[in-house]
Amino acid sequence: MKGNILIAQSGGPTAAINSSCCGIVQEALKHGEEIEEIYGAVNGILGVLHEEMLNLKKEDIAVIELLKRTPSSALGSCRYKLIEKDYNRVLEVLEAHDIRYCFFIGGNDTMDTADKVNKLAKEHGYELRVIGVPKTVDNDLFGTDHCPGYPSTARWLAIAVRDAGLDTKAIYTTDTIKIIETMGRDSGWLTASTALARDEPGDPPHLIYLPERPFNEEKFLLDVKRVYDQLGYVVITVCEGLKDKEGRILVESRVKTDIDTFGHAQRGGIADFLCNLIKDKLEIKARFDKPGTIQRVSMMCASEVDLEEGYEAGKAAVEQAAKGKSGYMITLERAPSAEYKCTMGLIMLERVANLKRLVPDEFINEDGNDVTKEFLEWARPLIRPGLPKYARLKRVLVKKKLE
Amino acid sequence: MKGNILIAQSGGPTAAINSSCCGIVQEALKHGEEIEEIYGAVNGILGVLHEEMLNLKKEDIAVIELLKRTPSSALGSCRYKLIEKDYNRVLEVLEAHDIRYCFFIGGNDTMDTADKVNKLAKEHGYELRVIGVPKTVDNDLFGTDHCPGYPSTARWLAIAVRDAGLDTKAIYTTDTIKIIETMGRDSGWLTASTALARDEPGDPPHLIYLPERPFNEEKFLLDVKRVYDQLGYVVITVCEGLKDKEGRILVESRVKTDIDTFGHAQRGGIADFLCNLIKDKLEIKARFDKPGTIQRVSMMCASEVDLEEGYEAGKAAVEQAAKGKSGYMITLERAPSAEYKCTMGLIMLERVANLKRLVPDEFINEDGNDVTKEFLEWARPLIRPGLPKYARLKRVLVKKKLE
Repeated sequence: MKGNILIAQSGGPTAAINSSCCGIVQEALKHGEEIEEIYGAVNGILGVLHEEMLNLKKEDIAVIELLKRTPSSALGSCRYKLIEKDYNRVLEVLEAHDIRYCFFIGGNDTMDTADKVNKLAKEHGYELRVIGVPKTVDNDLFGTDHCPGYPSTARWLAIAVRDAGLDTKAIYTTDTIKIIETMGRDSGWLTASTALARDEPGDPPHLIYLPERPFNEEKFLLDVKRVYDQLGYVVITVCEGLKDKEGRILVESRVKTDIDTFGHAQRGGIADFLCNLIKDKLEIKARFDKPGTIQRVSMMCASEVDLEEGYEAGKAAVEQAAKGKSGYMITLERAPSAEYKCTMGLIMLERVANLKRLVPDEFINEDGNDVTKEFLEWARPLIRPGLPKYARLKRVLVKKKLE
Repeated sequence: MKGNILIAQSGGPTAAINSSCCGIVQEALKHGEEIEEIYGAVNGILGVLHEEMLNLKKEDIAVIELLKRTPSSALGSCRYKLIEKDYNRVLEVLEAHDIRYCFFIGGNDTMDTADKVNKLAKEHGYELRVIGVPKTVDNDLFGTDHCPGYPSTARWLAIAVRDAGLDTKAIYTTDTIKIIETMGRDSGWLTASTALARDEPGDPPHLIYLPERPFNEEKFLLDVKRVYDQLGYVVITVCEGLKDKEGRILVESRVKTDIDTFGHAQRGGIADFLCNLIKDKLEIKARFDKPGTIQRVSMMCASEVDLEEGYEAGKAAVEQAAKGKSGYMITLERAPSAEYKCTMGLIMLERVANLKRLVPDEFINEDGNDVTKEFLEWARPLIRPGLPKYARLKRVLVKKKLE
């Protein structure tokens, strides 16, 4: 089918979302008989509603290539959910610009948009092929082994927690307890990835709390006290979205703030809250790091697997659309081989839209304060080239001569 | 002078402090006729008081070499200030182990310790050579162009702020204002370094606030509103130690918390405070990142200049001690040449101990919300290999056909 293509990026930016965009553009250029113009929506679906699109064929080829290693969403992003009154406008803009292929790169909200646009075109008899490309650091998309974006942030967190853990270990006589808050609205995939920081038993992080388990204050304090008594310092990673027994977000953290009316007082988040809890109840000094969006979008420690798979997912989306597929999201399918291998598959958009995939039970330890070996085996291949090698002293003590 | 050497690391760990330790050990191994054993104090001066020392000659040569790229303080650190009742014990331990060379790697508090140990030995006629090796991410040591540790954190912050800035720029329709809090108790060197994130005018960070200028709430809100009206989004970097007109820390941040009695309620820090101020007064949503110790110790973006200079400073310390020098700190002296060059010099410990070097006036803009060109020229050579190259789209808009 002859026509133009439109690429849209939505939701939180990542290290790999531009790699997917690059994959779409470079693959589209190979389909010159069918695909004429390559447009990029400015700020996702908002760019369609505002008829604001970039002509990506006007960009230098070298700049497009460099998108593979450029963080954040180069086209601009949004968090807008399509409503019924937008539908006519969307069709009108697509038709006016003869857009026959739409690629939506994003998470579950984005897949909802993609699904709506696909169904809308069908209903109105407008020939359009819509493919979703998965992207979210939260890794909570249904139907795919993992999501592009996640491995890079997982690697960033593993390295950051290892470095900060070494810091706390060295200066424990004054800075004894460190809490690092990770992103993750509802799922603990990112928090879990901090376990990759460990080389040997006893290495930080010592305690890991995911929102998949209700937070229990007394249990938490007992956990912290136990590690403190044993090692003299404690490094804890927590998900920003920790919930209580009733499923309510523990503190007015980022998630809550999003829907706050303006002017409402905001807390520093869960890590700040837990530092105070430790100071109040255990009388031990605690501090927190909250790397926030830096963890989400940083290219510092991008996973090579992630950038490659992000690219491949974009490329596969064009290939599938060219074959006539529409209404699907690309999935990452891990081969059951011992060596890590991943191929691109498909799932219906309507099966993915608005669903959330939580960390499964087999990846969380019985105590609810760590991950399992199974999680580590699942996650480790994703963060290639792994962690930098550091010196580890034997620490042979000089024989005492006094006392 | 024949005898053993002792290396101590104190204060906050960094990316380069182990590189200095490596420089000391590798240089000491070349002075085999004078230097016999090479000891590392466990947790700085506390290791001397507790007679806890590591025998570094028992470590593999390859592990010592790897210290060059290992973050945090491998020997362990402390924040202990020597008091008079400790003096006899220090001398007793040094004497018992025939320690004739002491190398203290640290900041201004550490140089105070080094100075005291040096004078103490002199007073008691104990032959000892003491050399300080500068280290602090805060960069506030007197008498040196800059301090090992600072360039790596400066580079980390420049890259993190650039990445997070691209994030906010992409998703500005919902996440409009981003505040990133940097370390820096009293000086704004680290906050200033975030200006290195910019490639072109208008790039983030848009506003930079250092503790060298009293914080003015109304001026701050006007600044933020102006950038917001102009660009539609704002990225702000602030120092954790921002002060009011009276020189008081603005909020109960890290600095204050250190001296708090346990159990005292703590705020998330200055960035959290300013987010709320913006929400209350401007009714714009604002969020903060507080990378905390991750910025201080991370090896992710270590500056090559920093790791080299950290090593050279350690090496120079041994060379100077071997020549008979004692009671000095190594300084980094920048050549006045166009191309960046730095040599190692000396300054008396007593001139450095407990002093603080603030960011000078010529590095801060008149408005007090940014740095000057002079600062950027001073700082840029320190963060070699600089910043990664990213794609920058021309953004040619597709001609509108509707409306």
